[in-house]
Amino acid sequence: MVGRTAYIAVDWGTTNRRAYAMTADGAVVDTLQDGRGVLALSPGDYPEAIATLRERFGAQTIVVAGMVGSTRGWREAPYIDAPATLQALGAAALDVAPDVRIIPGVALRSGPRPDVMRGEEVQVLGAISTGAAPPTALFCQPGTHNKWIETVDGAITDFATVMTGELFALVRAHGILAGMLDGAVADGAAFRDGLKRGREARNLAAALFEVRAGVLLDRLAPADAAAYASGVMIGTDVGTRTDLGDRPVHLLGGGALAALYTVAITEAGGRVVTVPDGATTAGIHAIWSLRA
Amino acid sequence: MVGRTAYIAVDWGTTNRRAYAMTADGAVVDTLQDGRGVLALSPGDYPEAIATLRERFGAQTIVVAGMVGSTRGWREAPYIDAPATLQALGAAALDVAPDVRIIPGVALRSGPRPDVMRGEEVQVLGAISTGAAPPTALFCQPGTHNKWIETVDGAITDFATVMTGELFALVRAHGILAGMLDGAVADGAAFRDGLKRGREARNLAAALFEVRAGVLLDRLAPADAAAYASGVMIGTDVGTRTDLGDRPVHLLGGGALAALYTVAITEAGGRVVTVPDGATTAGIHAIWSLRA
Repeated sequence: MVGRTAYIAVDWGTTNRRAYAMTADGAVVDTLQDGRGVLALSPGDYPEAIATLRERFGAQTIVVAGMVGSTRGWREAPYIDAPATLQALGAAALDVAPDVRIIPGVALRSGPRPDVMRGEEVQVLGAISTGAAPPTALFCQPGTHNKWIETVDGAITDFATVMTGELFALVRAHGILAGMLDGAVADGAAFRDGLKRGREARNLAAALFEVRAGVLLDRLAPADAAAYASGVMIGTDVGTRTDLGDRPVHLLGGGALAALYTVAITEAGGRVVTVPDGATTAGIHAIWSLRA
Repeated sequence: MVGRTAYIAVDWGTTNRRAYAMTADGAVVDTLQDGRGVLALSPGDYPEAIATLRERFGAQTIVVAGMVGSTRGWREAPYIDAPATLQALGAAALDVAPDVRIIPGVALRSGPRPDVMRGEEVQVLGAISTGAAPPTALFCQPGTHNKWIETVDGAITDFATVMTGELFALVRAHGILAGMLDGAVADGAAFRDGLKRGREARNLAAALFEVRAGVLLDRLAPADAAAYASGVMIGTDVGTRTDLGDRPVHLLGGGALAALYTVAITEAGGRVVTVPDGATTAGIHAIWSLRA
């Protein structure tokens, strides 16, 4: 039996929009996914974009997480400071339109280094809310901008954004390595060689040129160059963590990139615990429940 | 009194071509510089490009260094292995056309990491040949691909290519930092803050996102972002050297980038000795003299 829709949860990111019709006890009864992400919309487009959700799911409250609340999105929902809890995120949600609330992101504003996140906080704290991860943990969320996130007692206390995926895409598309990196990126000997080199070198600008030199000098097969380069970049990323032996890494997200990070963390002496799907809707549900 | 042209030296790079009418004792009597670099020419264009040099300077022998001898240039002059001397470079020069010789590059083929250079070897060994640098030294040649080069007794024994300049250009033109890095890049507080952060972080993928976060959180003035980001990238590059306290760094090349590297090396505890202009023609002259 399908429960009654109590509200609509939306994970509204840079390139995609995922909407979920939710019951009052947090079950998903219907979903919509499309390409109407932040990059595809101007601020004036959002009322119509919301209207399409209402046509599909009904007139219920809409609770949104993600880049829609950034300066590039609909309207800015200002970052809250770490340490950040679900309660604090819920209290700071922005009422952007009648019955539409945007959950803010989290900032490291006054510590030794600045950083920001928007969307990942809901996923991390959602995983904790369901017991899929413990309240004090280290998380990794691979993506265009990989995030390492630390929580203590159910609050996000620290995090670091590493532009690994973006830099890999840039060197693959432009510059002197472009055209050398068209091969498959998958786990294997070349990827693991790259991981090792990346962990040692730590600075990917120093290790990346070796991809070109390796191909020119017949030390690296052209078909292996992309996997090796990916290994170098993910290896430098994982190599920045000096605490991998101390505790498990809770890995968020699935797919090929998560599989590569699993290999990379394991090869670096860490232990990966994969967080099941559903953490984002669980986080939005916990925030909705605070005001329901 | 202007001496008689004995041969023509050409520094033929990726984007520029610099030709010098040389006397038998190594003086420059005439020069030509244009944009007919390797990227502007197909292999079939070189005979005509050589003809224009002969029209200008005469029928003498032409000795060429640089990317013209790469697989993307006129014809490949295969790399010689390190340790590489001027004598070895001269002996391996490729006779590409009547009275036209291309000096090869240098490769690290069998050591722990592969690397290649083409053009810098002539400049480094030329600086040593004139006494502008000692036979055993550490060199830095800033550029799109910064090179750190070590020599022992007048031979290039080791070197490392760091893609600092290319990665800076890529993040400035594309991706999430594009549009944030339009400010001036110059020495100053922001550049030096970036240097410090880069040396600490060492992995620029981890430190670069802080540029965006710093601007979003009003910790970094938008006008300072480019200088800070440049500092981060050059700081990670210089930070990979752990031997800067041991000996001077002989800096090749001039202009704004060399000035920034001078600051970066000095801030990291190193001492810079600037190599005067003319090292490339000195290197070509030494090689020409071997067969003159």
